[in-house]
Amino acid sequence: MKQFNIAIFGCGTVGGGVARILTEIKDTISQRCGCNINLKKIVEIEPKFASEKYNVPREFFCGDGDIISREEANKFIQDVISASDIDLIVETIGGSNDFIEKICADILNSGKHLVTANKALLAERGSAIYKAAEKNNKIIGFEAAVCGAIPIIKTIKENLTGDQILSVSGIMNGTSNYILSKMHDENMDFASALMLAQEKGYAEADPTLDINGGDAGHKLIILMKLVFGIDLKMDELSISGIQDITIDDIEFAREINSRIKLICFAQRIDGDIYATVCPMMVKNDNFLSDINGATNAVNIISKYAGKHILVGAGAGSTETASSIVADIVFIARYAEKMEHHFAKEKINFVDARHFKFAYIITFETEDEPGITGLVTTAVGEQKINIDTVSHNMHKSHKAIFSIATMPCTLEQIDNAIAVIRAKNSHVLLSEPKVIPILY
Amino acid sequence: MKQFNIAIFGCGTVGGGVARILTEIKDTISQRCGCNINLKKIVEIEPKFASEKYNVPREFFCGDGDIISREEANKFIQDVISASDIDLIVETIGGSNDFIEKICADILNSGKHLVTANKALLAERGSAIYKAAEKNNKIIGFEAAVCGAIPIIKTIKENLTGDQILSVSGIMNGTSNYILSKMHDENMDFASALMLAQEKGYAEADPTLDINGGDAGHKLIILMKLVFGIDLKMDELSISGIQDITIDDIEFAREINSRIKLICFAQRIDGDIYATVCPMMVKNDNFLSDINGATNAVNIISKYAGKHILVGAGAGSTETASSIVADIVFIARYAEKMEHHFAKEKINFVDARHFKFAYIITFETEDEPGITGLVTTAVGEQKINIDTVSHNMHKSHKAIFSIATMPCTLEQIDNAIAVIRAKNSHVLLSEPKVIPILY
Repeated sequence: MKQFNIAIFGCGTVGGGVARILTEIKDTISQRCGCNINLKKIVEIEPKFASEKYNVPREFFCGDGDIISREEANKFIQDVISASDIDLIVETIGGSNDFIEKICADILNSGKHLVTANKALLAERGSAIYKAAEKNNKIIGFEAAVCGAIPIIKTIKENLTGDQILSVSGIMNGTSNYILSKMHDENMDFASALMLAQEKGYAEADPTLDINGGDAGHKLIILMKLVFGIDLKMDELSISGIQDITIDDIEFAREINSRIKLICFAQRIDGDIYATVCPMMVKNDNFLSDINGATNAVNIISKYAGKHILVGAGAGSTETASSIVADIVFIARYAEKMEHHFAKEKINFVDARHFKFAYIITFETEDEPGITGLVTTAVGEQKINIDTVSHNMHKSHKAIFSIATMPCTLEQIDNAIAVIRAKNSHVLLSEPKVIPILY
Repeated sequence: MKQFNIAIFGCGTVGGGVARILTEIKDTISQRCGCNINLKKIVEIEPKFASEKYNVPREFFCGDGDIISREEANKFIQDVISASDIDLIVETIGGSNDFIEKICADILNSGKHLVTANKALLAERGSAIYKAAEKNNKIIGFEAAVCGAIPIIKTIKENLTGDQILSVSGIMNGTSNYILSKMHDENMDFASALMLAQEKGYAEADPTLDINGGDAGHKLIILMKLVFGIDLKMDELSISGIQDITIDDIEFAREINSRIKLICFAQRIDGDIYATVCPMMVKNDNFLSDINGATNAVNIISKYAGKHILVGAGAGSTETASSIVADIVFIARYAEKMEHHFAKEKINFVDARHFKFAYIITFETEDEPGITGLVTTAVGEQKINIDTVSHNMHKSHKAIFSIATMPCTLEQIDNAIAVIRAKNSHVLLSEPKVIPILY
């Protein structure tokens, strides 16, 4: 039987899971591929720890001793990249920097396939990597880079190919979803929920990218390239996180039968794609409102088949690793016939501020007569239809109230707010909070 | 560019949808395949009607005139099967009989790929067809045979290949789900809900296979072969339908925070697979309880990734057709590298009467003292733990009450019922209704 040999760079949470699956069910996976899938080498700076933690024989790890130096690790990496008997390398070191980009490019330039979970690298430096793959006629598997265990990449590339995808929306960051779920269900404030997420291991020591929408943004950029063929840079996509969501916002959401979720959103209208990452008020009728804790979920609407929903684990060791191993199987089966199937239609990216969402605008104002009239008049003058004005909370000298609009653009809302400020400079005690509603 | 030529046999709801997609987005699909996907011929006995209904140019249809005779159609079918310039034939005639089996075998024996939505044929006569494909090294695509637009077949064959599937459960028959939803939400009885389903076009004129579980059984048999490599005959699988579900059962379900759903269930425990199709009380916490109307949903639990959920349209013209076109794309891309990837592990099928479900048993008895004691004692003697005894409905001279058990086998329950009958032959006014609970 043909041999197909694998090396792994970086044996942490995800790499360790890959090593574990490749050793535990080697025969099943080999039978699925019609060739022997052999784990050959692992390069990891703490081989003893990783070997014990993920129950992977020490013999797979390069180097002697409990730990190896970075210099040694780099030498082993170069040795593996140069080795003629390795067919595919799994990169699970992580990070988006010159060092990792060079490793990934070297893997492809050496004539090996690359499988990676590195969403930051693909989102920020993907075009160089995709080009290296195309030039060398090698494959990049990146199923694990978007939504962990959910096979969203293959579902789009290989399964929904008898159709045209019109929109993709979803919950793609488990940490922020866990925090928002705690705020909704246990009335925690943001800081306490974040602390709990860190204690439980759902949030990193530095949770910045999870809570500011950066991680979700990485995933949406990868999907935009895959589904619509659009190369987007991080600073071109409007991204906001959940760090400013308060218990009051959660309360407003409940009032309108919604839950606040950090949503990745991309919708095609004719030749334009509107996209954004931001917290949205998700109506209870939308199944995304039921996705709580660290679970991820994606809603795909296509022209002929209508709605597809996928739900699964967004992170975790063997969970994410199962997606990497599935990439290995797919490449072992089909590499010679695979092409770089990004969409190739002529299609434009449009900032989602031009997309017509219904919005919730929350105003914090002086508690004095005439303000509702002032605000609603200004909103109406911008041709924004108001759906409801609700929930006046009176707190000492201030009032908080929210307006639910009919679909309009963010530009219209910004103009309305500017008019309110111009008319009465002290009426707004803070910047109004503007959150789209997802039906 | 390479040409890949398609013919369609049978241009009804599904075949018409395929013809429509293949003509409407020919360029997109061809770009995805890296070759020109050309619809060449359609054999249909009512070409004029189909051409107009599905907006497909008349020139694709074999024969002149508004309708063609069966003899003519058979001749055209044989001509297309013999044609050297056709690469793949879509069979959307339907039915499970010698005639269709021969057509499908002839397609494969002529060296062409076959794509079909024919679940009855694959479930009842699949092994002959699978063998013909293997012998000729040709592919059978059957994505559309299970759950319409949901890409469940490719998800299992191609996406979840880095894992071991432990269980598959789901709602795979839209008609029965529509009927049950109406019974739950609008308090309709079974007969009225069925009539409404027929009026709305969700149920066929002869709805037997939808309501007796036969259609769902076909789908589960196909999945059992795919996931676990088990060749199962219809009479080996325990199948019951929804025809005996009453408003009282719906009421009991509501009381225990559940909804009744027709569930396809297969679960692996070590080397055994337990499988059944029957109505179950699905707990509100289980997302399957939220799947209403004609939608389908599948819950896959795997060893490494945990839970995967897929939801989508279970039927419909372009919905089901999108799955067929996706098969065409996959075959055009990969046929030369595709193998017949059914699971090959040594695994046993076990009747689900040996599986330990929690059950709801509903008794209709004489309304007289001592019966609860008699029944619960008999149940306890069979080592069945009782969870709750609930809801005594007293109707003239009879009482209806239900027992929720802790997990036990159907054998234990049958034994308990036999003991009750033996002790007091007139106490049970009808056969007790036994429904598993799905958590």
